[in-house]
Amino acid sequence: MQDVPNTGVLTGKPIAHGGDLGEVRRRHPDAPQPWIDLSTGINPVPYPVIEQPADVWSRLPSREAEQALIAAAAARYRCAPGQLVAAPGTQALIQILPRLVPRSRVAIVGPTYAEHEHNWRRHGHDVAVVTTLEAADADVVVVVNPDNPTGRILPTQALRGVTARLLVVDEAFIDLLPGEASLAGNLPGNAVVLRSFGKTYGLAGLRLGFAVAHEALARQLRDELGPWAVAGPALTIGAAALADDAWLQAAATRLADDAHRLDALLASAGFTILGGTTLFRLASHPKAHDKVEDLARQGIHVRAFGHQPTWLRFGLPAGDGEFRRLSAALQVPQKVR
Amino acid sequence: MQDVPNTGVLTGKPIAHGGDLGEVRRRHPDAPQPWIDLSTGINPVPYPVIEQPADVWSRLPSREAEQALIAAAAARYRCAPGQLVAAPGTQALIQILPRLVPRSRVAIVGPTYAEHEHNWRRHGHDVAVVTTLEAADADVVVVVNPDNPTGRILPTQALRGVTARLLVVDEAFIDLLPGEASLAGNLPGNAVVLRSFGKTYGLAGLRLGFAVAHEALARQLRDELGPWAVAGPALTIGAAALADDAWLQAAATRLADDAHRLDALLASAGFTILGGTTLFRLASHPKAHDKVEDLARQGIHVRAFGHQPTWLRFGLPAGDGEFRRLSAALQVPQKVR
Repeated sequence: MQDVPNTGVLTGKPIAHGGDLGEVRRRHPDAPQPWIDLSTGINPVPYPVIEQPADVWSRLPSREAEQALIAAAAARYRCAPGQLVAAPGTQALIQILPRLVPRSRVAIVGPTYAEHEHNWRRHGHDVAVVTTLEAADADVVVVVNPDNPTGRILPTQALRGVTARLLVVDEAFIDLLPGEASLAGNLPGNAVVLRSFGKTYGLAGLRLGFAVAHEALARQLRDELGPWAVAGPALTIGAAALADDAWLQAAATRLADDAHRLDALLASAGFTILGGTTLFRLASHPKAHDKVEDLARQGIHVRAFGHQPTWLRFGLPAGDGEFRRLSAALQVPQKVR
Repeated sequence: MQDVPNTGVLTGKPIAHGGDLGEVRRRHPDAPQPWIDLSTGINPVPYPVIEQPADVWSRLPSREAEQALIAAAAARYRCAPGQLVAAPGTQALIQILPRLVPRSRVAIVGPTYAEHEHNWRRHGHDVAVVTTLEAADADVVVVVNPDNPTGRILPTQALRGVTARLLVVDEAFIDLLPGEASLAGNLPGNAVVLRSFGKTYGLAGLRLGFAVAHEALARQLRDELGPWAVAGPALTIGAAALADDAWLQAAATRLADDAHRLDALLASAGFTILGGTTLFRLASHPKAHDKVEDLARQGIHVRAFGHQPTWLRFGLPAGDGEFRRLSAALQVPQKVR
């Protein structure tokens, strides 16, 4: 067996992620129920999952169902079907990409979503985290665009100027920006774009994500994933959701409104809004750690960052009820709307 | 990019699998509906999928839900939770294992499920397909037990005698044999066991499978899969099904009866029964190819084998209606039962 070091070996502790209430629940057993989980950037109003036909569960996922999903994704992302690879979440692709590249110098524009750094290091690459795209002088450049958690958006023109052998652009939070913001529709020769399904569509449990890559790399990624990588329900629900322009438009409008509302609320509570996307807001507070604990005692889970102790990331509350609980927890008088 | 050759490069054509009606449907557009798919070894009477709570779809799969699945699987497979790795199908594990081993001599006892050979070769190992376990003299030995498609069962004692550095035992079809038939409950130091969920429980679309491995290898496999590898619905449905002894017992009885009934039917139609498991039967016929086409014209899909042109594999019909159609298609007078 080759010695592939695990997370613990590399970092001393597992990577912190939002979206898991287990630990915070144990630390605050008396918090009011139900918990409000604002620790992720997942749309709190999911695409409606209707009951699936029985054979979606029982049969092996069919080539036809996968092709229908790919066709819907190609239309949504404005790329060719041959450039698309469907995976059980973009995480699966983040796991695979570092394996397809010989040991390289890798520059990650960050700090950002920690799984990129973790996986490139895990495969023995020489990884540097740099703060700007201009400083990213390496064989492989990794960018999260818009960035998580800052929301910083790099113009496609700047990304097209990257001359690295491989440019990985994680567009997990780009769905709600205009189509032109994405590289997927006009892919540079050296680029692979990652597109998440679960965040915008509020279906993170489904496990679905895509790579947009040129055909040779797309084929390698498919070969690594192997057959039946995406579950039957994800194929059919994904195909329906990605083709549903009206739902996406309505979600974009609602989320933009709610992001403004959340910013106003956080500003009233003494936070400085640093950025974010319409799926999460990044704010700073001199007593960020106390705020996390204070909110947790009131059954609200938000995301802190080890590398930036004054930062907090807030996912969007699901509606008036959750906004009210958040206002009360932050002791902001709630305006009549 | 490293040049990882794709399926086409290695074999000249994609691996044939059962379970996809698309192509046979196109070749026989006038076949009676609905198609009966007997081309797999998937239980035709699935574990009942009740509607899932919304957060199974919407939230990231939680650590607690994964631990509950692992606990249920550990009880079912009689192993320690720390030895278990949950994956989105055993195929995902078959994809990963060859990557964790330095270039090795690999002996696969076969011909058998083709994805093993394909993946070991794809990663540059020196692969030989040998016909008996005794002939498997290599660094890595791969066995499918019970074998697919022959149903040949190797005694655990023989497997315990394998001195290879790594012994991969694919127990995809072992659920319906007594627990002692499996290596999972008393894992040899050099072994990794693969256990499928979707076949026995009739839920191949769910994508769920397990490795049972010693802790270091289990950790490597988890690291390769990364977080949230198994979808939310698979965690909850899998945990419920694996803990349901009564359902499994009833399924085993019904499947054993149906396997006998299928054998009798095939024998009456001039087939020689070669073996199989209670989830599929392997039969030979001098005009196997004609039989496949003849059945397809009547809307029944069975599995043929390029390497054994007289072999056909039959999955189990779902009940009286499908048995009647198969009898009629094979021109066997149906006995009153």
